[in-house]
Amino acid sequence: MREDVEAVLAANREFYRAFANRDAEAMANLWSRRNPIACIHPGWDALVDRDQIIRSWQQILATRDAPEIECLNVTPYVIGEAAFVVCHEALDGNMLAATNIFRLEDGDWKLIHHQSGPLAILPLGDMEAPSSERLH
Amino acid sequence: MREDVEAVLAANREFYRAFANRDAEAMANLWSRRNPIACIHPGWDALVDRDQIIRSWQQILATRDAPEIECLNVTPYVIGEAAFVVCHEALDGNMLAATNIFRLEDGDWKLIHHQSGPLAILPLGDMEAPSSERLH
Repeated sequence: MREDVEAVLAANREFYRAFANRDAEAMANLWSRRNPIACIHPGWDALVDRDQIIRSWQQILATRDAPEIECLNVTPYVIGEAAFVVCHEALDGNMLAATNIFRLEDGDWKLIHHQSGPLAILPLGDMEAPSSERLH
Repeated sequence: MREDVEAVLAANREFYRAFANRDAEAMANLWSRRNPIACIHPGWDALVDRDQIIRSWQQILATRDAPEIECLNVTPYVIGEAAFVVCHEALDGNMLAATNIFRLEDGDWKLIHHQSGPLAILPLGDMEAPSSERLH
């Protein structure tokens, strides 16, 4: 179980490494080809088609002014051959909260879902957003 | 497998029923007590403590002007004893995209994670957000 957690954390680091390095090929290889996947970029509609998801990443990683991204405060959860992490994404003074879901395939933890959205306030100990910013 | 999908969809419906009916007791019972959980409300920081998560729902459901919520366009994914759905949440003219993760416990699919965030545009076939709204 401890090994699974380490492997999931490594897969999550690899995701942010590909993101930060704008490595579209590594990004495409991180996502499962065998199982259904999904992706919700901040503000975007949910994507559930693999080609559309890979294209969305190619588009994001090709943008000349793509922001630097850093992954922080990772909390991992493993449930058999599925796992997810909850983490922060720091980019250009913005802080986002993200969920990344992985699935074990032949010994590799492959990405099957990503959702990320901005925090209304920066995390400073107290965990609640101001009510004026809340949708629910 | 088909039965698992149906059971996950039923658990997801129950989550939105509790939400729409402001049923804090049902909401608390839907979330796992046995396993670690997480929750990212729109704009909020990630919550990873069960008491904090249940309190956040009590607070949301107790708000007199809590918006009506409807779950739409659910796509389910089952991976052994873990499952997640990607769906839309329609509330008061806003459209959000959400991820709900479940874990099988003694035959019941219990919630272990929820993340929801607003779409920058309403979904109308084309799935991409305008670049001005994008964080990545």
